[in-house]
Amino acid sequence: MTTGLKTGLAAGAAAATPVLAQGAQRTERWGVHELVFDGPQTGNPFVDVAVAAVFKGAGKTIRVPGFYDGKGVYRIRFSPPDTGRWTWETESSASELAGKRGGFECVAASAGNHGPMRVTQDGYHFAYADGTPFRQIGTTCYAWALQSDAKCAQTIETLKAAPFNKMRMLVTPNVDAVATNPFVRTGKGPRDWDPTRFDPDYFRRYEDRIIRLGQLGIEADVILFHPYDEKRGYNDMKRADDERYVRYCAARWGAYRHVWWSMGNEYDAIKTKSMDDWDHLFEVLVGADPHDRLRSIHQINVYYDHRKPWITHASIQNGAAVLDDIRAAMHRDFALKPVIFDEVVYEGNSDKRWGQLTAEQMVERFWWGLIGGTYVGHSETYDPNRNADYSWLGQGGVLKGTSAPRLAFLKKIMEEGPAPGIDPIQHWWNYHIGGKPHEYFLKYFGAASPSEWKVQLPGRKSDPKHSFRADIIDTWNMTVTPVDGVFTMQQLNEYDVHDPARPSIALPGKPWIAVRMVKI
Amino acid sequence: MTTGLKTGLAAGAAAATPVLAQGAQRTERWGVHELVFDGPQTGNPFVDVAVAAVFKGAGKTIRVPGFYDGKGVYRIRFSPPDTGRWTWETESSASELAGKRGGFECVAASAGNHGPMRVTQDGYHFAYADGTPFRQIGTTCYAWALQSDAKCAQTIETLKAAPFNKMRMLVTPNVDAVATNPFVRTGKGPRDWDPTRFDPDYFRRYEDRIIRLGQLGIEADVILFHPYDEKRGYNDMKRADDERYVRYCAARWGAYRHVWWSMGNEYDAIKTKSMDDWDHLFEVLVGADPHDRLRSIHQINVYYDHRKPWITHASIQNGAAVLDDIRAAMHRDFALKPVIFDEVVYEGNSDKRWGQLTAEQMVERFWWGLIGGTYVGHSETYDPNRNADYSWLGQGGVLKGTSAPRLAFLKKIMEEGPAPGIDPIQHWWNYHIGGKPHEYFLKYFGAASPSEWKVQLPGRKSDPKHSFRADIIDTWNMTVTPVDGVFTMQQLNEYDVHDPARPSIALPGKPWIAVRMVKI
Repeated sequence: MTTGLKTGLAAGAAAATPVLAQGAQRTERWGVHELVFDGPQTGNPFVDVAVAAVFKGAGKTIRVPGFYDGKGVYRIRFSPPDTGRWTWETESSASELAGKRGGFECVAASAGNHGPMRVTQDGYHFAYADGTPFRQIGTTCYAWALQSDAKCAQTIETLKAAPFNKMRMLVTPNVDAVATNPFVRTGKGPRDWDPTRFDPDYFRRYEDRIIRLGQLGIEADVILFHPYDEKRGYNDMKRADDERYVRYCAARWGAYRHVWWSMGNEYDAIKTKSMDDWDHLFEVLVGADPHDRLRSIHQINVYYDHRKPWITHASIQNGAAVLDDIRAAMHRDFALKPVIFDEVVYEGNSDKRWGQLTAEQMVERFWWGLIGGTYVGHSETYDPNRNADYSWLGQGGVLKGTSAPRLAFLKKIMEEGPAPGIDPIQHWWNYHIGGKPHEYFLKYFGAASPSEWKVQLPGRKSDPKHSFRADIIDTWNMTVTPVDGVFTMQQLNEYDVHDPARPSIALPGKPWIAVRMVKI
Repeated sequence: MTTGLKTGLAAGAAAATPVLAQGAQRTERWGVHELVFDGPQTGNPFVDVAVAAVFKGAGKTIRVPGFYDGKGVYRIRFSPPDTGRWTWETESSASELAGKRGGFECVAASAGNHGPMRVTQDGYHFAYADGTPFRQIGTTCYAWALQSDAKCAQTIETLKAAPFNKMRMLVTPNVDAVATNPFVRTGKGPRDWDPTRFDPDYFRRYEDRIIRLGQLGIEADVILFHPYDEKRGYNDMKRADDERYVRYCAARWGAYRHVWWSMGNEYDAIKTKSMDDWDHLFEVLVGADPHDRLRSIHQINVYYDHRKPWITHASIQNGAAVLDDIRAAMHRDFALKPVIFDEVVYEGNSDKRWGQLTAEQMVERFWWGLIGGTYVGHSETYDPNRNADYSWLGQGGVLKGTSAPRLAFLKKIMEEGPAPGIDPIQHWWNYHIGGKPHEYFLKYFGAASPSEWKVQLPGRKSDPKHSFRADIIDTWNMTVTPVDGVFTMQQLNEYDVHDPARPSIALPGKPWIAVRMVKI
């Protein structure tokens, strides 16, 4: 066995395969700097060999665990948070992997690289590390990454033309898939596999899909566990195996700046794990992920307590919460963190009630969520046999619904709005208005078809008085119609302002209308 | 100084003043067994002397802290949880109070004594210790206990004729009051008082009010801290003083079976305490209250995390949450505990928007809360000068609003309903129905005035099919009108049942209507 040292330069998530290089190196900020070493192949390296590197630079010291990639190859992936000179030194239980040293220059991020996602200072929104706001329009294709290369390519083509900027995706299969064996098989039965030996090919394939999403600017919401796998039992392992699996995923994928961690999908439907198990796995993940990627967990019935310190944002399944901006906003009050309704039932033709939304109903949920200061996720279930397993939701492929263009339109409205995002405005007083107090107001009428809106906006005597322009937004037909003239606000009562000369706005009497009031 | 031993027999909360007796004693189950001792008067007994008794009986050992009641008198109050022989032995830092021994016979509870309040096994409702369901119809008179005896007597008279079975009440004053000095005064300024020396008269007066509520069968929701006291600063003490105060209240009042603890009113408006302080004070309270009375805390803006282990139920302020049963029910999903909306803005004529509800709007909030499986609190602000300080909310006295009879009617509907209470039924699917699945359904229409209700009830093929009788309930006019005939349920689709012969119920086209469907 040779014990070599290879150090890697990768432009980050944009590189499908890390480019290896010897000697002097440069890696861009928030890219992936990969170290590659040859090491022990005997025994079970996944269990027997620990390897990590301590990186020092920009006044920081960051210890990054590595992983075994099979065939005697060990990798350590680091995403430098700051420019400048970084040095590193390896640690390992294997002497031939320990004490290696090197360094590299971290250069400025290239165009389009905004860095990893963070929760904004106000506590309720997301922005890239460079400050660029992130207006989440998510979708879900549970097992798209585990399909054939051809099917994956089709999904990627669909995503290129779609508005989605976050993808929820399972690591292990829930529906029919080409890739089904994350662990080395030991026999022919579905449960004949060795939880202590990962199959690097499986993880490399998944990683390729992660990287392709990064190339499209789509965040990868990686779901580590789910309950849809009673046959194979990947989600029913023992604690030590779960820990090893979580650490392996974190070491392999944590350096990709667009990775988010979803600890579980419908976690509370996994009967072999208790709340203590979930809390423990989060603690393992926090310890295993020096890149500190976003972390959440998604439920079916029992809300996880998203105030727990390891949770960065609330990931919620609830189809009713986003039919009312105030219900949605209350989830912020509970979590005191950003809220994404990752599952609000789906557009489609499923024979189940959770997959029968019209496109109008799907879009409506995004708008109410927005007014409530939260974010919403899409998916669709269209299938000739009404079996969602074979739909976009299950496998990816092509979109058959009609909500996506409207979600693109919504995203544009969001981008034109305040940064970092829309907040509910005095939602405990039933205004049903989102925006930014005194500056930007977004009123949405949902399925109602009013012919007029009485313009009364929250504002007290001590608040600044501004003038506003107004737009009538048809959220379904994707039109923005300016209202002529200016609204000059004056005090109406102790709590509200209005323009006495223009107390109301005429509306078209159709559903799916919003009004936007922007300070001039 | 004489060091004597007196043991007390009290029939429990029903006794305004504990009856002292020597020698053989009997105390009823869940009553108050009071031990009275003479002890040290020198120095500052509130700080210098610790006293407690260890009670043994029914296989249990319970250590009960005592308190100094002034003039050399020490009291230890114990509420025996089980009948049979109990023995006790005192512990004290003062030798003359230590090592006293005695015993008493705990006899069966008398009629009307249902024991202390507990959360029911299902996790979302309340019942007395004997299993009697508690249908919470709360009210708030913040400083009623601190008013003159005459005014207090007036409040008691009002309560005798009112439906309320829980009273929220501050320990320290927020508005004009007769009793304003819980601590011994040291000068003439509002902040001239000694936090280490309680005024026993003040606490004895408050205790008298607690006992009077008990005589009426009204739970006393004792609010330990509040933010309406910047002048005197009782809520801005140092940690050690807060701890002593909490322990004193717990020792004095914890044995009364109808006491609940509300750690704070609008806790997050008290700027001198952090979240850590609140958590700490709860830990102090848990340690100081061997009777384990219900514990919660009430917010203005920032929801406390009611999943914390010391919280027994969520106490919520939110006027919008109870305008929609699903918003209300989501608070159960957040807390995983019973939810009481203790403040939903008030009926009255206040010039503030938080005190301007019509009686209809007040009653509406109770009904939506009920359908959502939660409980609601009342108060009113009527005052000739529109100043709520001098209203029922501030000082008690008489009720001027018209919601109370409707809340009595509501309470009767609750009592006729399932035990331990109404649960939301599939609220994440927007049925807007509460009750008990397959057996009892309560549909409420609020301010809407439908002329018909299409009767589709949640029920799958595998669920039992029943026949139902129906009532149309006018929640404002307090009438129950039976619908002729029987509804025999059959499967309508995968999720719902209906009676194809009687697919709908005609309604009167008025607001504030509910329909009750009860299994025959």
